[in-house]
Amino acid sequence: MENTIIYGKNAVIEALEANTREFNKILIANNSRADVKIEKIKELASKHGIVFQFVAKEKLNQLEPEGRHQGVIAQVSPVKYVDLDDFIEEHEGSDTSVVILDGVEDSHNVGAIIRSCVCAGVKGIILPSRRGVLINSTVEKTSAGATNHISIIKVNSIVGAVQKLKEHNYWVIASDHHANDNYYDIDYTNMSFALIMGAEHAGISRSLMKLADFKVKIPMLTNFNSLNVSNAAAIILFEGVKQRCAKNASNRSRK
Amino acid sequence: MENTIIYGKNAVIEALEANTREFNKILIANNSRADVKIEKIKELASKHGIVFQFVAKEKLNQLEPEGRHQGVIAQVSPVKYVDLDDFIEEHEGSDTSVVILDGVEDSHNVGAIIRSCVCAGVKGIILPSRRGVLINSTVEKTSAGATNHISIIKVNSIVGAVQKLKEHNYWVIASDHHANDNYYDIDYTNMSFALIMGAEHAGISRSLMKLADFKVKIPMLTNFNSLNVSNAAAIILFEGVKQRCAKNASNRSRK
Repeated sequence: MENTIIYGKNAVIEALEANTREFNKILIANNSRADVKIEKIKELASKHGIVFQFVAKEKLNQLEPEGRHQGVIAQVSPVKYVDLDDFIEEHEGSDTSVVILDGVEDSHNVGAIIRSCVCAGVKGIILPSRRGVLINSTVEKTSAGATNHISIIKVNSIVGAVQKLKEHNYWVIASDHHANDNYYDIDYTNMSFALIMGAEHAGISRSLMKLADFKVKIPMLTNFNSLNVSNAAAIILFEGVKQRCAKNASNRSRK
Repeated sequence: MENTIIYGKNAVIEALEANTREFNKILIANNSRADVKIEKIKELASKHGIVFQFVAKEKLNQLEPEGRHQGVIAQVSPVKYVDLDDFIEEHEGSDTSVVILDGVEDSHNVGAIIRSCVCAGVKGIILPSRRGVLINSTVEKTSAGATNHISIIKVNSIVGAVQKLKEHNYWVIASDHHANDNYYDIDYTNMSFALIMGAEHAGISRSLMKLADFKVKIPMLTNFNSLNVSNAAAIILFEGVKQRCAKNASNRSRK
């Protein structure tokens, strides 16, 4: 089995609970303080018949040199990427949202965006196979395990993916700080949409921008350059969440 | 002069433009491709009479071992922390917002929050002197230079700081995912407010929570644990920005 690692207590717990990955084994630092999360990891591992071993902290430091492992590393199979056609078919007929990252380069940003996506009920994240970051251990850690709760779709061509989504009635929203419209002027309810976020410096490529049905900006109160891409994604996605919560509340009150 | 470093093209440009720090010198990798930003750095340095030197990339890697320096490192005086009393006095009589970080531990999160604060017109960020992260090079880089555009206030007691802000008519808002009220049910216009964000794992301390005038949660569409703290801060702050933009637009249309 080709191995990758997942590190950090929450990330390992989420992966165990989601139960979509093949675990080789879990390594726990033998000087870890017995805490609720370590106990939970041992319990879940036992339940799923996964081996856990106590090892010297130095061994964990070798596997994850930045020292952010919090005393726990799981050796697991790599993330399973989902085919875009399969994803579209699975969600046909329901209001579905996806986020497309057009070459986002920082693993922390990709991880934080995936985490926000899962909180916001986004069902898929689309990444280009040859630019930007794919799923790595830093992404998994930063996502706090959210990578196990969303379809991760790797495509050779983002333009091709967007065209396919449009054929299946997804509305395409591009985040662009030169846009005329504000992100909160869109109605995110009752539709399937694909939100495109551009790379940290380059933004969204021109060929992709042409395919957008809506171009939206986030108005600011100062002239300072721009928001971090994961924060911008969170602001837009949670406007959508807010609209859906408000709609659900008003539907309930009408009954 | 006690030195710290600022690295990355945008962070160095922002620091040069803000012109609030003392520069020792700027080091540029001698294999840097001539690009617009490097040219701008050289131009600004010349304008302010700051020495820049071309050095081997290895020299920069020694100063910033993670290799995120993008070929530019400035040796500068540390960030100047602002006294809370001075801050309050300076902004007396205007609607002012501040963000309080109750022990946020990750430098990337602190940097991203400061960046969002500046975009959202927040005037000050309050950090405890003995818990969590203070301003370091990673914070400055992640903030994209936003640390130069906001008052950074270091306090021994966050509780004391909040009490003082309340005496000066700041409304205190605590972000807490157990809260009953939604963040978008507050009117952020026509008031000074202090938004408290808790540490990544521990949240906001109980003694601080008691002082809050509003406790707000961000509703989610799934049961997934919670948002990254910088994304949560951005979502709440930009609800405030949106309300103020909407208000300004409606005031204009009434004239």
